[in-house]
Amino acid sequence: MGSAAPLGRGPKVRAAVLAAAVQELSEHGYAAFTIDNVAQRVGVHKTTIYRRWPDRDALIADALADSVAAEIPIPDTGSIEGDLNALARSLVTWISSPSGRAVLAVMLSTAAGQPPPPVSARHAFRDRIRKALPVVTRAVERGELPSGTDPAELIKTLVAPIYFRVLITGEAVDDHTADAAATVAVTAARAGLFG
Amino acid sequence: MGSAAPLGRGPKVRAAVLAAAVQELSEHGYAAFTIDNVAQRVGVHKTTIYRRWPDRDALIADALADSVAAEIPIPDTGSIEGDLNALARSLVTWISSPSGRAVLAVMLSTAAGQPPPPVSARHAFRDRIRKALPVVTRAVERGELPSGTDPAELIKTLVAPIYFRVLITGEAVDDHTADAAATVAVTAARAGLFG
Repeated sequence: MGSAAPLGRGPKVRAAVLAAAVQELSEHGYAAFTIDNVAQRVGVHKTTIYRRWPDRDALIADALADSVAAEIPIPDTGSIEGDLNALARSLVTWISSPSGRAVLAVMLSTAAGQPPPPVSARHAFRDRIRKALPVVTRAVERGELPSGTDPAELIKTLVAPIYFRVLITGEAVDDHTADAAATVAVTAARAGLFG
Repeated sequence: MGSAAPLGRGPKVRAAVLAAAVQELSEHGYAAFTIDNVAQRVGVHKTTIYRRWPDRDALIADALADSVAAEIPIPDTGSIEGDLNALARSLVTWISSPSGRAVLAVMLSTAAGQPPPPVSARHAFRDRIRKALPVVTRAVERGELPSGTDPAELIKTLVAPIYFRVLITGEAVDDHTADAAATVAVTAARAGLFG
């Protein structure tokens, strides 16, 4: 089955290329990123990569989205507190990891006079916020939060303090940071501030 | 008096050099920043600059701190809502301006594989947070917030959603963003979440 697929075909090569792309970004940054280097790292010919991704920006965008999706799963614990805590803790773990740092570095490279990253890089973040919205709509359906709560406003309030510490003040983030952010977000939501 | 000071001496040249440094950062980025370019822009010899700042990093750090201090004044309106609204609105105005963008670009250039900015660049942000703390301690003294409220936690909760939108989702920020952030921060503080 899957394990019988030769390298160069099937989902295994896709996963291997995406993982190698994140590693390349992590070690050498966005400006130095080439499909040649990724191909060499995976041990495939670069045409194997070009068969699936038309250019480096398409590959980078997929690699970022894949990294975020794999490492920040969307929880469904049955309570809004449980879900927000789990989301915030996954974000803290991811943002402290080499692949999280690599994704952030690409995202922020416009700000430093580097060649601009693909617009689709930002989509990895927006997409992740969008995928987390059901956490809020389920809580509204369960009667835990006021009806009319804006899911995106709540999720942004949840994650903002974590990004802020990593990017601006350079503080360490941990489970305590995550839990405090979750408590602020749920308190504001219960007070009707996202209505 | 001050207006009689020749260029090259007195507070006027200091202000001119700092403003030119922010403009240089804004137009050409951190990596391309040189004291020669700043001197040329101000119309002074570079020794005039070296007399006050030992190297480019010292000049950059001062320029960033000066820009932040000038453009995000610390309010004292008499109420915590008034002060937090004013702080958040100043931040929104500054972060949307060319000098705000320049400061952020320097701050974030480590993330993009550029030469690292001076550690003191981060100090401009930490220092600004520190200077805003009396806004919270005055509110505690007036009985508006629970005693034991951690001022730094409140101020970070206030500003995080603004930085998050600018840096991560790339959304526009405006007075509405500022006011919403202030309401969340004061609600969380009144609920004792920063105690």
